[in-house]
Amino acid sequence: MSSELIHSLRKGNRLALSRVLSQVEDGTKASQAILEKLFRATGSAHKIGITGPPGSGKSTLVNGLARELRRREPQLKVAIIAVDPSSPFTGGAILGDRVRMLDLQGDNQIFIRSMASRGALGGLAEQTEGLSQVFDAAGYGFILIETVGAGQSEVDVVNLAHTTIVVDTPGMGDDIQSIKAGILEIADILVVNKADRPGADQSAAHLRNMVEMGYAADYSAGKHLLSGSLSASTGVVTPAGWIPPVLKTIASEFQGISELSDAVLAHAAYLRQSGQWHAKDEAAIRANIRRLVTAELIGEFRQTVPAELMEALVIKVQQRELAPNEAVRELLAYNRINSLKSSE
Amino acid sequence: MSSELIHSLRKGNRLALSRVLSQVEDGTKASQAILEKLFRATGSAHKIGITGPPGSGKSTLVNGLARELRRREPQLKVAIIAVDPSSPFTGGAILGDRVRMLDLQGDNQIFIRSMASRGALGGLAEQTEGLSQVFDAAGYGFILIETVGAGQSEVDVVNLAHTTIVVDTPGMGDDIQSIKAGILEIADILVVNKADRPGADQSAAHLRNMVEMGYAADYSAGKHLLSGSLSASTGVVTPAGWIPPVLKTIASEFQGISELSDAVLAHAAYLRQSGQWHAKDEAAIRANIRRLVTAELIGEFRQTVPAELMEALVIKVQQRELAPNEAVRELLAYNRINSLKSSE
Repeated sequence: MSSELIHSLRKGNRLALSRVLSQVEDGTKASQAILEKLFRATGSAHKIGITGPPGSGKSTLVNGLARELRRREPQLKVAIIAVDPSSPFTGGAILGDRVRMLDLQGDNQIFIRSMASRGALGGLAEQTEGLSQVFDAAGYGFILIETVGAGQSEVDVVNLAHTTIVVDTPGMGDDIQSIKAGILEIADILVVNKADRPGADQSAAHLRNMVEMGYAADYSAGKHLLSGSLSASTGVVTPAGWIPPVLKTIASEFQGISELSDAVLAHAAYLRQSGQWHAKDEAAIRANIRRLVTAELIGEFRQTVPAELMEALVIKVQQRELAPNEAVRELLAYNRINSLKSSE
Repeated sequence: MSSELIHSLRKGNRLALSRVLSQVEDGTKASQAILEKLFRATGSAHKIGITGPPGSGKSTLVNGLARELRRREPQLKVAIIAVDPSSPFTGGAILGDRVRMLDLQGDNQIFIRSMASRGALGGLAEQTEGLSQVFDAAGYGFILIETVGAGQSEVDVVNLAHTTIVVDTPGMGDDIQSIKAGILEIADILVVNKADRPGADQSAAHLRNMVEMGYAADYSAGKHLLSGSLSASTGVVTPAGWIPPVLKTIASEFQGISELSDAVLAHAAYLRQSGQWHAKDEAAIRANIRRLVTAELIGEFRQTVPAELMEALVIKVQQRELAPNEAVRELLAYNRINSLKSSE
């Protein structure tokens, strides 16, 4: 049954793809077996993470990028995974999904999947990794992973991508600079979207300054290239590595999307030439293994330690008879003895 | 040594407090012993979480609230923990810290602590919980926990508070509504800050609508109360529970801060009367224990499984000889056998 499903999926059947995606998102036991079978067929897709604050127009930008990548590489299918960690409680992503579907209808080589689920085992990053493996094995050449915000969970999600695009808009607020400072270090490409708004040039100049500071050492080698607009828009490769370009776009009018695609493809070429592609792949695998190990260890613990013991200890801690650390020591001692018993 | 430190801390020595906070933030072994000793003295503080998007003026609002709470309850000290998960890579919080210190100087019963650290064991939520326990044991009556953003990590941080305040500003962008939808369900008090900007009334009305929808069932009992401005600003208690008030503030001019304090104190009174205080305390303890158990399980795993085995398996996965799940099974089998050996 599951191998038929996998066969259909690999042949490009969208219904089979939908089914497998749902199973992986739900994290069923069956989905683990499916992922295992699919895994050997992964490793070809270019994974592109897109993040930025709410209101920066990421979805429109991602839709535009998907369309442009399809135009450039007609033989490659494009998947969009829209991760919405900001709504852990509601099913808000569903509506957005429909609106986007409408926007991209007519191209059945673009597949959109939204996730609005409430922290399954291993969390959002794990789910995203799973969906991404499915798309990869199903022959999708580009996987766009879109996430709202710039917190730790977004960094985790984006970490599995080969190319990270950080989107911002002109003059969003006063403490937004602190976000940029943090997120800058994971950006391969920076975009000022809604560039028809006042302040777009200042925002772009500000970002360029920050990039320049961050890459001061590498810059002396490649700085002159930045005056040429082509090199500035496709990223600058110096002996020391890739320097993120800062691009202006008006995604709602499809402006700047072609330059963005140039930069994305240039970054992929850079990664492959420099051996960084391999390194990014390895980092994603390492993170994936780490998360799976954590999830399994917790799963085993929950199976071993009875709920009553946990409850009794929580009460003692609440009454300040025990410190949390003391309760944890008791729980782990129980776990050690009893998982030992069960493996004898 | 550490008991002297604890003694000084409990007597109100700010230097001792600083030292203990640093140790707890660094997650040293010594800090675990300190937290254990301090824990019995915790449980009195009112923990207040404040979250919202960047640019909403949270820091100014939090400073104002701290000052107003000090005015209302002069016998109680106020702690501010500023969590900055959006800058996992930079030490950006330090500067902000100094600016805020300046703003609040002259009141040595207010203590500010910023965290800009890169995911210690158990993560931001665990660190915040630790710092919060230290302040609690040191006799701080109010602990304000401020975090940027509205992602999962912010929800985790805010979950340990008794009262959660969600701050927004008028007309921040187009997809901001989706954040509100998610974050609404954890809000006890909603604030539209920078209420002198255009669109403040619409934003407040919009939030009231969303609250009304979310609490439709409870509303029939308490709706009429909302027309009275006092009840609207301090929250409405219906037979079914607390309905979050929507407040307008201009924190930079200290406007609306008094009403916000009313709401905060009303919510505390509600929690105590309804037994919810106890329930929130228990939820925080449960989450704390869960995080500590996870951190310990991973720590044990890392000590048991040699790095070489991990590396060998990562390479096999990267070469698509093994699926991640298969590598994880090998790692866990090794871990089981060898932690078994060491406990024999």
